[in-house]
Amino acid sequence: MKLKGVAVIGQSGGPTAVINQSLVGIIEEASKYPEITGILGTLHGVAGLLKEELIDLKKESPEALERIAKTPSSALLSVRKKPSPEECARVFEVFKAHDVRYFFYIGGNDTAETLHIINKIAQESKYEFNAIHVPKTIDNDLRVTDHCPGYGSAARFVACAFMGDNLDNRSIPGIKINVVMGRHAGFLTAASILARKFDDDGPHLVYVPEVNFELDLFVQDVKRVYEKYGRCIVAVSEGVHTPDGRPVVELGEKDAHGNVQLSGSGALADFLAEQVKKGIGGKLRVRADTFGYLQRCFPGIVSEVDEHEAREVGREAVRGSFGAEGDGSVAIRRVNNNPYRVEFFMTTLDSVAKHTTCMDASYIAREGNDIRDNFIDYVRPLAGELPVMERLQAVNVPKKLA
Amino acid sequence: MKLKGVAVIGQSGGPTAVINQSLVGIIEEASKYPEITGILGTLHGVAGLLKEELIDLKKESPEALERIAKTPSSALLSVRKKPSPEECARVFEVFKAHDVRYFFYIGGNDTAETLHIINKIAQESKYEFNAIHVPKTIDNDLRVTDHCPGYGSAARFVACAFMGDNLDNRSIPGIKINVVMGRHAGFLTAASILARKFDDDGPHLVYVPEVNFELDLFVQDVKRVYEKYGRCIVAVSEGVHTPDGRPVVELGEKDAHGNVQLSGSGALADFLAEQVKKGIGGKLRVRADTFGYLQRCFPGIVSEVDEHEAREVGREAVRGSFGAEGDGSVAIRRVNNNPYRVEFFMTTLDSVAKHTTCMDASYIAREGNDIRDNFIDYVRPLAGELPVMERLQAVNVPKKLA
Repeated sequence: MKLKGVAVIGQSGGPTAVINQSLVGIIEEASKYPEITGILGTLHGVAGLLKEELIDLKKESPEALERIAKTPSSALLSVRKKPSPEECARVFEVFKAHDVRYFFYIGGNDTAETLHIINKIAQESKYEFNAIHVPKTIDNDLRVTDHCPGYGSAARFVACAFMGDNLDNRSIPGIKINVVMGRHAGFLTAASILARKFDDDGPHLVYVPEVNFELDLFVQDVKRVYEKYGRCIVAVSEGVHTPDGRPVVELGEKDAHGNVQLSGSGALADFLAEQVKKGIGGKLRVRADTFGYLQRCFPGIVSEVDEHEAREVGREAVRGSFGAEGDGSVAIRRVNNNPYRVEFFMTTLDSVAKHTTCMDASYIAREGNDIRDNFIDYVRPLAGELPVMERLQAVNVPKKLA
Repeated sequence: MKLKGVAVIGQSGGPTAVINQSLVGIIEEASKYPEITGILGTLHGVAGLLKEELIDLKKESPEALERIAKTPSSALLSVRKKPSPEECARVFEVFKAHDVRYFFYIGGNDTAETLHIINKIAQESKYEFNAIHVPKTIDNDLRVTDHCPGYGSAARFVACAFMGDNLDNRSIPGIKINVVMGRHAGFLTAASILARKFDDDGPHLVYVPEVNFELDLFVQDVKRVYEKYGRCIVAVSEGVHTPDGRPVVELGEKDAHGNVQLSGSGALADFLAEQVKKGIGGKLRVRADTFGYLQRCFPGIVSEVDEHEAREVGREAVRGSFGAEGDGSVAIRRVNNNPYRVEFFMTTLDSVAKHTTCMDASYIAREGNDIRDNFIDYVRPLAGELPVMERLQAVNVPKKLA
C-alpha cells in the first residue's frame, strides 16, 4: 500500500564516494508516484529535523542532480547523533506538521538504529509511517546484505593505493606500514590484496580487527618478510585491538554512539613503525602512512558497479517502502559471481540496526596475518576494473668486469 | 654530433606517477638512431652501475613498454645515493667496458648532482660522453624549467584529495589538518587551492615552506576561520619550519644527500592537531591526515598533460644530447597559457644540479597563510581537467512549528 504524504530524505554517519547516488535514486523513484506529495531533504540528518530545517528537493534540476550523484560526500550533510527520547518525539512532531509519511535515511548501522527509535514512536502513536534505511558504509559491516554501497569505491581506493605504494616501496626498499579504515570489520583493509600481481608484491602482511593483534608476533612477521624480500608492506586496520579488546593506541574521543575515535591521527601507524624499528634494530628504513579520510570520499576513484548499486538501493528503497510494514532496509543479494549479478530486496530495520557484522573466518589466513585468495572472488567485482601494473622483463646483460 | 655507442638509462630519487613515460620516451627516441648501438637500463640507478647490473631494454616489447609507461613508480627501480669519488671512478669503468656514450638519468636535483660528478670524471679522462638529466619531481623544485614532470599528477592528487576532504569536512564539521609533501617548495601544497569552488570551500589556510611557520599565529588563524565557518581545513607542507630553520617536528633520519626525513610519519599533522586542541580548547573535533606516499604514485590519478610532457622530456633528452656538449638537462618553457602550450629545451647540468628553487613570492598571501589566485593560472593546466563538485541549491521549506 502506498501511503499518501511527503517523503523526507536524510544522510548520516561517515560519507562515501557514492552516497549521493542513493540520494538521487530516491528522488528519481519517489518522483514517479503521485501518492508521494513532496520530496524534502533534512540537512545534517536528525539535527536538521530537530530544528525543522527542511529543504525542497523538487527544486533541484535533473541536470544538477546528476552532477550531485557524481559528487562524493553527503550532499545533504551528515551527523553523528543518537537522538534522545525527547528529541525523537520532537522529530515526530516535525513529521506530523509536514505530513511526512516516508523517511529515507541513508547510513550505516548507527543510522538504522536512530531510524528504528524514531519509528517506534510513530508506531506507538499509530501514525502511519514508513521508516526506510538505505545502506551505505565503506566498512562494509552491515548485516544481512552481501555488501554495502560505498565499500566498492573505497576498496578500489585501497587497492590502487597499495598498487602504487607497492611499486614505490619496490623502487626504494624498506618497511612500510599502511593503516586503513575499519572499526570492527577488516573488509576494507583486506581489499589491499587486490594490489598483488607478482609473487613478491605487497601487501605481504594483513591485519584485520577480526583477529587479536599481538605486537610481538607482528614484529616477528615483519622481520621474516623483510629477510625474505628485503622489503615489507603491511596493511593494518585502524580497528586492530589487543587480546583484551583495547585499541592498540588509544586516542580518547568517543562519538554519540559510543564509538571511540580511530581515524584522523597517524598515531597507530607511527607507533607500529616505532615498534618495528625497536624490535628489528639496525638502520632500517621504516615508513608509516595512514590513509585517513581520503579513502572514503576521493573524487574520481569510484567503482562503476558501486556507483550503479548505490543508485539502485535508492530506487529500491522507494519501491520497497510500499510493501514494507512500517519499516525496512534495502539489502543486496549476490545471485551470481561470474558474471557478477545481484538483486535488491527489503529486510527489516531490526535485522540491520545497531549490531554490525565482520569478515567470515574463511577469508582470514590461519596465522591471522594475511587474507586468503578466496576473498578476491568476493571483492573483485565490487572494486571494478583496476589499473594494470606492468614490470620490465629485465633481461640481464653479461658482465664484462671482474 | 651523434656519438657512436651504447645508451644507459637510470631512475633516481622519489618516484612519480609518470616517471616511466620519460623512460619509454628515451627508449623510443634512442631506437631511431643507428649511432646508438644499444639501450641498457641500470636497476636502482648508480647502485646497479656499481655492481655492473645492467639490463637490455631492447628486449622489452613495444606493447609492454606502453603498459610500463602507464605504470607509476620507477620501473628501473630507484636509489638515493651520492656516489663517492671512488664509486664514480668505478661507474666510469663500467661505462667504458660497455662502450656507454650516453647516460640518461631521470630524477631531481640530487640526481642531476650525481650525474654532474660522474661526468666530471669522464671529462677529465677525455672520454667522449653525454650525461643527460631528465627532470622529474613532484616537489616541482627544479631550477630553470617552468615546471617538472610528475608535479602535475601529484598536484591533481592533492587537488582531488582536498575536494573530497572539503566536502567530507562540510558534512561533519570540524577542524582538519592535511600535511602535503614538499621539502623546500610549497608548489604541491599550494595545488590544494584548486579544490576551491564555493566561497566557503577549503583549504581555508595554506602554509608552505617559503614562509617561516609560527605556531601561535597558526593557532590564531585556525581559530578565526573556525569562528567564521564552523569548520576549518588546513593545508600544510611537510617542510614547514620555525623561523630559525628547524623542522616543526624532527624525525631524526637523513639520506645520503643530507636531506632529513619528513615523510612516512603522521607526527607533524598530529602535533599540529594537538596544538589546535590545546590552543582553542573546548570539545573540538580536530582531525589530521598526512597524505604520505600515496600522493606521488597513485595509479589512475594522472594528469594527461603531465603524462604527455613526461614522455616528451624523454624524447627531447635524446635529441638534445646530440647538440649537448657533454652534459645537459631537459627543461620546459611555457610559451602560452591560454591555450596552454610549451616547448622543450636543453639547459646545462650545472644550472639545475644540487640547488633547488621555490615558489615565487607573488603566489603567497601577505599574511603567509594562504596562496593567491594567480597561482591557479600557473597550476591549472598542469593538473588537467578536474572533477566537478556540485552542491544542492537547498531551497528552504517554510517552518510550521514554533
